[in-house]
Amino acid sequence: MNYKMMGRFIGQILLVQCIFMVPALVMSLCMKEESSVRSFLITIALLGILGLGLRRLGRSAKNRFYARDGLICVGVSWIIMSVLGCLPFYLSGAIPSYIDALFEMVSGFTTTGASVLEDVEALPYGILYWRSFSHWLGGMGVLVFLLAMPIAGEGGSGFTMHLLRAESSGPNVGKLVPRMKSTAQILYILYIVLTVLNVIFLLAGGMPVFDAVCTALGTAGTGGFGIKADSMAGYGPYIQNVCTVFMLLFGVNFSCYYLLLLRQVKSVLKDEELRLYLGIVAGSILLIVWNLRGFYDTLEETVRHAAFQVASIITTTGYATTDYDLWPGFSKGILLFLMIIGACAGSTSGGFKCGRALLIVKNMLRSVRQIIQPQKVQVVRLNGQRVDEKVLANANTFLAAYVVIFIASFLLVSLDGFSMMTNFSAVLACFNNIGPGFETVGPACNFGAFSVLSKLVLIMDMLAGRLEIFPILILFSRTAWRRK
Amino acid sequence: MNYKMMGRFIGQILLVQCIFMVPALVMSLCMKEESSVRSFLITIALLGILGLGLRRLGRSAKNRFYARDGLICVGVSWIIMSVLGCLPFYLSGAIPSYIDALFEMVSGFTTTGASVLEDVEALPYGILYWRSFSHWLGGMGVLVFLLAMPIAGEGGSGFTMHLLRAESSGPNVGKLVPRMKSTAQILYILYIVLTVLNVIFLLAGGMPVFDAVCTALGTAGTGGFGIKADSMAGYGPYIQNVCTVFMLLFGVNFSCYYLLLLRQVKSVLKDEELRLYLGIVAGSILLIVWNLRGFYDTLEETVRHAAFQVASIITTTGYATTDYDLWPGFSKGILLFLMIIGACAGSTSGGFKCGRALLIVKNMLRSVRQIIQPQKVQVVRLNGQRVDEKVLANANTFLAAYVVIFIASFLLVSLDGFSMMTNFSAVLACFNNIGPGFETVGPACNFGAFSVLSKLVLIMDMLAGRLEIFPILILFSRTAWRRK
Repeated sequence: MNYKMMGRFIGQILLVQCIFMVPALVMSLCMKEESSVRSFLITIALLGILGLGLRRLGRSAKNRFYARDGLICVGVSWIIMSVLGCLPFYLSGAIPSYIDALFEMVSGFTTTGASVLEDVEALPYGILYWRSFSHWLGGMGVLVFLLAMPIAGEGGSGFTMHLLRAESSGPNVGKLVPRMKSTAQILYILYIVLTVLNVIFLLAGGMPVFDAVCTALGTAGTGGFGIKADSMAGYGPYIQNVCTVFMLLFGVNFSCYYLLLLRQVKSVLKDEELRLYLGIVAGSILLIVWNLRGFYDTLEETVRHAAFQVASIITTTGYATTDYDLWPGFSKGILLFLMIIGACAGSTSGGFKCGRALLIVKNMLRSVRQIIQPQKVQVVRLNGQRVDEKVLANANTFLAAYVVIFIASFLLVSLDGFSMMTNFSAVLACFNNIGPGFETVGPACNFGAFSVLSKLVLIMDMLAGRLEIFPILILFSRTAWRRK
Repeated sequence: MNYKMMGRFIGQILLVQCIFMVPALVMSLCMKEESSVRSFLITIALLGILGLGLRRLGRSAKNRFYARDGLICVGVSWIIMSVLGCLPFYLSGAIPSYIDALFEMVSGFTTTGASVLEDVEALPYGILYWRSFSHWLGGMGVLVFLLAMPIAGEGGSGFTMHLLRAESSGPNVGKLVPRMKSTAQILYILYIVLTVLNVIFLLAGGMPVFDAVCTALGTAGTGGFGIKADSMAGYGPYIQNVCTVFMLLFGVNFSCYYLLLLRQVKSVLKDEELRLYLGIVAGSILLIVWNLRGFYDTLEETVRHAAFQVASIITTTGYATTDYDLWPGFSKGILLFLMIIGACAGSTSGGFKCGRALLIVKNMLRSVRQIIQPQKVQVVRLNGQRVDEKVLANANTFLAAYVVIFIASFLLVSLDGFSMMTNFSAVLACFNNIGPGFETVGPACNFGAFSVLSKLVLIMDMLAGRLEIFPILILFSRTAWRRK
């Protein structure tokens, strides 16, 4: 393990976090929220000192790296970011328990949106803003941001590739352009443009500026922290529909947008993952509308709620316009399926990802074909191209790791004695970075009732889900920490 | 597809079934159950005529086979066996709906033990016997039985190997001895001896002969059809404990017993799957006893119920001595975990199998090691031997197919509008051949309330679970049916 390099990176990340906390401080100052101002000042000072110190310590680091170093760096830096980033929640007294504050912060950075708060409307503006902003930062990834910065330097391109891979989502993250730095910059520019568009559309619907910004930040990161107790239920149909559209847009692989900019419309339309994603969305909405007939007063309302909830769940955002826990079993079953599958690889969404599911199903069908015609060499193709066997094996390993961690988490959370569906959906909602689940953790409820142990388990699940398991799993391996 | 050979095999299977139905007929005659006698007579005649006819048609079959032919044969023959085997239930009027009768029969042959019957005690003795006997026949496999018979001939050894592989459980079924026929004979002799021992132990506890035979047949096949409305709750502690022990014994890989006969005690004790299985059993009992403190009057009662339910669920038998659906969440969570994992490969139990889980976890840990030390060639070992990469890939493919089929079934069953935990555990209980699930399909309830569609889905799940997915999955492939 190259500790010096790790120190340098983590130092830089803390400085980025330090700078990004300034707007929240300014907001608290404007709103004259004294305790928030104090807590932000202390945290910013701490982040600055630690960041500069670590960066100084790592100055003499050698540029030698392995893939595991990238994974460990990502895992450790996300934990440190959360441990320090939640200080404003705790120090300002907004969340009196530290473990609750940590849960809320991890939920923010990992774009989960699961909350422990009873009354979110009682929070000061500065704190609310920081909470929503954490979704935005975590959505595209703070390391990706760092790579996009001019100060970072190109570094060992192997290392930056490892970092980007470890923090980005999905099975087949490629570079958009040959240079990593440019890829990271393109991603962030697209991200910012889409977020700003989202704000503009929300403002056009008469949403207050603060609400629009926070909602857009949460939508962009597919996070889901609401700033109202009833999430999005209180807003008008126009705003809800804008949210639906933008949630779906943020669930699309960002390289599709880049291809659109290059006018390669055809290859976007032919993208198998995108087709699957849109197909699942359309199919789910239709089935739920059919299943919900008579549940709401008008067809418009039914379609609006169905579309919103489907978009919110498949992109793992977690906003809600209605308490879907009251829907009939079939609709809830579809939502459960959407919770598992998630949106596209290379988007800000969590979950299993349509692309990975596609690979796993294709690989499974290949096995059946192989049994039928053993003499024929069978290959798996995605978008016309042959998929590397390693990628297929990785997708299967991911599924295995996913199932194992899921079962272990489920058993630990079960100790609290809630209903099985509560425990099951709580783990699912955290692991897939969705936010709300069913029953005790349904959209009208929160995660506050869980024990400290369960919260710690769910915190690890959220991190493992956001970073796609291996950066967190590797932290538990003794060999990984050994010096060479 | 070699249709003639398939016809010959299916004909032979129907003849075996025909012969095995005779004892049920005799029992009905002795008990003077007129409608049962008539229904058994009709079915036996039908099985005999069809069996002889098919065997005649297939006389001129060429001995050319592929693996897929074995899989298709197994899939088709299990379906035909069930479609005809359920006629006594239907014709005698014991189960008035044909689809319910089919469900009950498939549940029997696949050793699931899920019932659609409200009042099992109202059934005639002959019918009850046939219902329990189906567990025994399905447990070790009717094709394996056929292979053990002198009439079958050795056949193409490739074909018989494919048949045995397709019908036996677990990832690594090997031959015990070089000749397939002898392997099948050894398996059946062990199976019969253990079943007889079980009957003797039950009789020693004062159980009526009929009850003891039916209970032992259900235990041996790890099936779980009870002949009492309260399953095993009404019997005394001794009988319950005998059941616990024998359920656990039938969950062990039968090759372990063969090794014991050869006095290779050491290699049995070192068997990693057996250790894992016994470890999970012991751990689960301890945790449930701890969790249930204060739930029952005495410690003895707590331990007895915990041990019985753990043994019943992990071996996917499905007998119950208490309504575990009333247990606290953690205990239910453990049972849910046991439902998924199942017992040992090469036993009569269903589910995922400890051995396969072991392979998947080991493979996952290998992937982590591979990330940490990419330059080192990493192998997976089981019982000290290197596991073939193909076996590992198959285990992962099995998991993928399992998850995909599970989700599809869950969505279809959700259409009935029951609670999500009902739907989830109904699919799990059928797919893993357990029997009871939770809530509406808990141990105190039955599957009668589901729609015809759901029952058909669950029937396919039971068959797919018993035959480990591929023999059923392949039936849906058009290529597999093509003539070469």
